[in-house]
Amino acid sequence: MTADPDCVFCKIIAGDIPSFTVFEDDQVFAFMDINPVNPGHSLVIPKHHSANVFETPDQWVAATMIGIRRLARAVEKTLSPHGINVLQANGPGAAQSVFHFHMHVIPRGVDDGLTMNWGLNPGDMEAIGKLCEAIKGNLD
Amino acid sequence: MTADPDCVFCKIIAGDIPSFTVFEDDQVFAFMDINPVNPGHSLVIPKHHSANVFETPDQWVAATMIGIRRLARAVEKTLSPHGINVLQANGPGAAQSVFHFHMHVIPRGVDDGLTMNWGLNPGDMEAIGKLCEAIKGNLD
Repeated sequence: MTADPDCVFCKIIAGDIPSFTVFEDDQVFAFMDINPVNPGHSLVIPKHHSANVFETPDQWVAATMIGIRRLARAVEKTLSPHGINVLQANGPGAAQSVFHFHMHVIPRGVDDGLTMNWGLNPGDMEAIGKLCEAIKGNLD
Repeated sequence: MTADPDCVFCKIIAGDIPSFTVFEDDQVFAFMDINPVNPGHSLVIPKHHSANVFETPDQWVAATMIGIRRLARAVEKTLSPHGINVLQANGPGAAQSVFHFHMHVIPRGVDDGLTMNWGLNPGDMEAIGKLCEAIKGNLD
């Protein structure tokens, strides 16, 4: 397990930057995206710093995916969206913005027209905090 | 491990429907998408039938993600795209079209404007077959 002192996600894991934490365990950390593309947009990251899917060892991509399943089930139970995408981005063509491997849970509306790349628009922090608590209450 | 006799992906795993297979092991099966949104679009599925991320046991989502990492590394080496997205869809809002858990490797161009949902447009089978061979040659 490695950390990068300049990485914003490593700082979130360490508690040096606050986050709306949904859950954490020895291997992964799950939290709300504060620039949500839809309500319930959230993330899982491994507690190991590496940039992308190419460089992240099997153990850590597997643990992250198990965390995504747990998070997606709780988001589904909380919001019952029309669908959920799990998305992971690598490189500029995919608009990767933080170079610490991460996977998104993105609740979908049938006609929301979401693109695979998006700009960062801050959400309503109070609403995100309330939704975080609701999702936590629905974890397996 | 379960299979559904009516599932198109279970039939692909069994060899009852042909596919451009990139690799397979005890747990997963990787193959080219024949309706590619970009060249190199490919998939990993577990050899266990379940509908989506909510219902697929941890063991199988983890194995699929390890397969995705292997596939993404080979696609990256083969095509050097501007980026790669890993995408997984659940439910109508995410336009899930086959109800056997699957994850996509999607090579990206900086300005390709891809949306998270897409229609199924058949690709050039000869080109897909050649690309499959090239990706196989770049597997770890």
